[in-house]
Amino acid sequence: MIGKTLNEIKIGDQAEFAKTISEFDIYMFAGITGDFNPVHINEDYAKQTFFKTRIAHGIMTAGFISTLLGTQLPGPGSIYIKQDLKFLAPVKIGDTITARVEVVEILDKKIWVRLKTTCFNQDDTQVLDGEAIISPPRAPKK
Amino acid sequence: MIGKTLNEIKIGDQAEFAKTISEFDIYMFAGITGDFNPVHINEDYAKQTFFKTRIAHGIMTAGFISTLLGTQLPGPGSIYIKQDLKFLAPVKIGDTITARVEVVEILDKKIWVRLKTTCFNQDDTQVLDGEAIISPPRAPKK
Amino acid sequence: MIGKTLNEIKIGDQAEFAKTISEFDIYMFAGITGDFNPVHINEDYAKQTFFKTRIAHGIMTAGFISTLLGTQLPGPGSIYIKQDLKFLAPVKIGDTITARVEVVEILDKKIWVRLKTTCFNQDDTQVLDGEAIISPPRAPKK
Amino acid sequence: MIGKTLNEIKIGDQAEFAKTISEFDIYMFAGITGDFNPVHINEDYAKQTFFKTRIAHGIMTAGFISTLLGTQLPGPGSIYIKQDLKFLAPVKIGDTITARVEVVEILDKKIWVRLKTTCFNQDDTQVLDGEAIISPPRAPKK
Repeated sequence: MIGKTLNEIKIGDQAEFAKTISEFDIYMFAGITGDFNPVHINEDYAKQTFFKTRIAHGIMTAGFISTLLGTQLPGPGSIYIKQDLKFLAPVKIGDTITARVEVVEILDKKIWVRLKTTCFNQDDTQVLDGEAIISPPRAPKK
Repeated sequence: MIGKTLNEIKIGDQAEFAKTISEFDIYMFAGITGDFNPVHINEDYAKQTFFKTRIAHGIMTAGFISTLLGTQLPGPGSIYIKQDLKFLAPVKIGDTITARVEVVEILDKKIWVRLKTTCFNQDDTQVLDGEAIISPPRAPKK
Repeated sequence: MIGKTLNEIKIGDQAEFAKTISEFDIYMFAGITGDFNPVHINEDYAKQTFFKTRIAHGIMTAGFISTLLGTQLPGPGSIYIKQDLKFLAPVKIGDTITARVEVVEILDKKIWVRLKTTCFNQDDTQVLDGEAIISPPRAPKK
Repeated sequence: MIGKTLNEIKIGDQAEFAKTISEFDIYMFAGITGDFNPVHINEDYAKQTFFKTRIAHGIMTAGFISTLLGTQLPGPGSIYIKQDLKFLAPVKIGDTITARVEVVEILDKKIWVRLKTTCFNQDDTQVLDGEAIISPPRAPKK
């Protein structure tokens, strides 16, 4: 249960995770965080907004980035340093979101890795853009 | 159900939200996002790490920032443009996290507001730092 | 709160439990177990498979058998020894699954009961077949 | 998003998944399945039983086997044919359960794989034994 160490990571390495967003996801996310902004949990209100229907919390989509970093690339043992997020388009119930992370820089001195982090919906519309800085797991001592 | 418009927001405006983090929060967050990194859901593994016990997902803490922006300052009708996050310290089960947002700049031309976004635990250790850019709600047409 | 003891159980005794499967059930089951196989939580992927849509986890359906054994026949105080499962057909969101258990053998010496365990959908298609071995509750000491 | 095909699977291939069992897991599993056997959700009752405290549903532990089969070995595209389960020891809140699957036979004619499926707790006590039959994903047509 150890992810990739700095030596095992190359620029261009990628990983993907996808999930169809359900009402359950949005309601549970509201329930955990307390973000009961009506645009997420009030269809009557939401249909009068620019979005026309309830939308997912932007930070929930960012959670799929965390899934990739913590379980695939680099994986277990990573320490999350920094995450920048730009919310580009709304995510609606029934959308299938594909999150991607791609290694873009290896910061040898700091033992950090920089990754491009993006999310797209089923129509290939980008909904999230950003960058993560991760400290990958160290090799276990021998 | 409309938050503060640009004219109603002043530099220095603040809001706070606090929650004691439960195992439920972490397990449910893993369940939504698929982030089953063992540091979150495997105590046997986690106690052998630097953290000594299971920790919350950093992005979950960021969700409390979203709660403030979407329900208090500016509140409903806001559009989330950007969020930068620095993860400074771990959050453990039983920690009480206080999230704060504070308006630091009003970008009149873009009709955007910049806020400092922070989270502290019960010992006043800062666990999250960052900044948000929000487009506050427009005044309803008369 | 005690189920049926060996003396109170007869061959041919039956019990039934039924539930309409919701997206919530599937997403929550994935969230508990970590089984984010895309066939369960990615509609875009699932529609390209043999199943044409997201399906429930087979083991979730088996959970309805456990419900019957643990709450009805024999009921509280039972000890679950063995369960064999054959997955015969997919379970989709909106399907109403009826689980049935029927006593087929009483193993006096071991103080065990053998039950046929089946699940059918609303069209009477069998989705699950199997057998359970249960140690029913002992009579409370007098 | 395709798991290992028959040609890519060898006897002896293994995969593991581990999770610390929380009260949340047990309560949500009860909530999905309706298995409100008091031994799972009534501490007052449970402490008077042989188990001395609330225990997890055996079928929930079996869910971790499904996680491995559906996401790792063989992974996405697999079809679950059969699962035999023997419940050997109780699982309590706070136990860390490690599920393992290991390929023990390749049934070429049927295009099936047989795997040994086991779960152990943090003290290396085996809590579940069994076998799965899986139809691994077919290679995509060219």
